[in-house]
Amino acid sequence: MARTGRRAGDAGTREAIISAARGEFAHSGYNAATIRAIARRAGVDPALVYHYFGDKPALFVATAALPKDPRDIRNATQATHQPGSPGVRLVANFLAQWEADPAHQGRPFVVLAQAVSSSPDVARSLREFLSERIWAGREDTGADAQWRFNAISSQLVGLAWSRYIVQLEPLASASRSEVAARFGPAIEALMTGGPAE
Amino acid sequence: MARTGRRAGDAGTREAIISAARGEFAHSGYNAATIRAIARRAGVDPALVYHYFGDKPALFVATAALPKDPRDIRNATQATHQPGSPGVRLVANFLAQWEADPAHQGRPFVVLAQAVSSSPDVARSLREFLSERIWAGREDTGADAQWRFNAISSQLVGLAWSRYIVQLEPLASASRSEVAARFGPAIEALMTGGPAE
Repeated sequence: MARTGRRAGDAGTREAIISAARGEFAHSGYNAATIRAIARRAGVDPALVYHYFGDKPALFVATAALPKDPRDIRNATQATHQPGSPGVRLVANFLAQWEADPAHQGRPFVVLAQAVSSSPDVARSLREFLSERIWAGREDTGADAQWRFNAISSQLVGLAWSRYIVQLEPLASASRSEVAARFGPAIEALMTGGPAE
Repeated sequence: MARTGRRAGDAGTREAIISAARGEFAHSGYNAATIRAIARRAGVDPALVYHYFGDKPALFVATAALPKDPRDIRNATQATHQPGSPGVRLVANFLAQWEADPAHQGRPFVVLAQAVSSSPDVARSLREFLSERIWAGREDTGADAQWRFNAISSQLVGLAWSRYIVQLEPLASASRSEVAARFGPAIEALMTGGPAE
C-alpha cells in the first residue's frame, strides 16, 4: 500500500502525515493543498491518509494548532507553576499555541480562519472537534455550562482574530502576558462563575 | 465620464455604487469581484468607483454591513424603547445587522470574514474603519478605554464567528434576544465598568 519503504501502520505514520499536512497547508493554503501532495510529502499512499483521517477537512482540523487532547487544556490551566488564575493561564496557553514561530506570529490561526470561513466542511469539522474532543471531556454538561463553553470559545477566537488578523492596537503589539492579564479575568468568570450570563 | 445617462456627482451615485458592490461581492465573493463589474452594475465609469472609495478593500469594508456612523451605535444603545441594558442592546443590534435576510442568516458576516482573513488589505481597511469611524467617535481615548474597545470588538466578532461560521450550539439556534441576554452583560461591563481587565 505504501509507496516507499515506510510500512503502513508504522507507529510514526500518523505523525508523519500530520507533519506533512501541516507543511502542505501552510505552503499551499487549504484550498490548493491536496491529499495527494500531502501523501507524497509523508512518503505514504494517499489511501492511508484517508484511512487515518477520513477527509481533507478533518485532516486539516487535526493539523491545526489545536490541543489534541482536552486534558492539555486542563493540565495547562492547573499548572500552578505558571502565574495567574486558570483563566489567565488558559489565555496565555491559547496564544502560545499560535505563536510558536516568532517570525510568523499567529500564522497558523490565520490559515485556520481562512479555511473555516471559506469551507462549510472545515467549519463542520471544527465544530465536531470542539464538541467531541474539547467539550465532551468536561464534567458539567447542563445548558448553562454549554452556554459558558460557547462564550469561552467565542471570546478566545475573537481575541485571536483581533490580535492576528485585524491587528487592533494595543492588542496586536502587547506581550502575551499582558494580553492574558487583560482578557483572562472575563474567561475566568465564565469558567468558574455562576450562571452563563 | 459616466458610461450611461447617470451623471457623475448625482446625489444617488455613491449609494448606487454601494448597492452594486454589495450585490457583486455577495454574488462573486471578494476575490472574484472586480471594480469593473461593480461599475457596470451601478451604471457608472470604473474611475468614479475609485474616486469615491479609493480601492477595492476600502469599497468592500464600506459595503459590509457595518454601521456607517458611530452615532448609529450610540443611538441604538440609548434607544430606551428597546429592552435591556446598553450592552444587551448593542449585542442585539450587532446581530440584527447580519440577520436582515432570514433565508441567509449571517451571510454578510461570512462574506466579510472570508475577505478579512484572506486579504491583508481588507484587514487593514477594516482596522482603519474601526479606528477612524467607530473608535474615533468616542470621548474617552485613554489606554484603558482602548483596551476596552479592543475587548468589545473581540467579543462581538467572536460571537458572530461562533454563531454564523462554526455554528456552535446552543448559540447558533438561539433567538437574537436570548443571545443578547446571555452575551450582553459581559459587553456591558466593558462599556461602563472600571478598568479594562
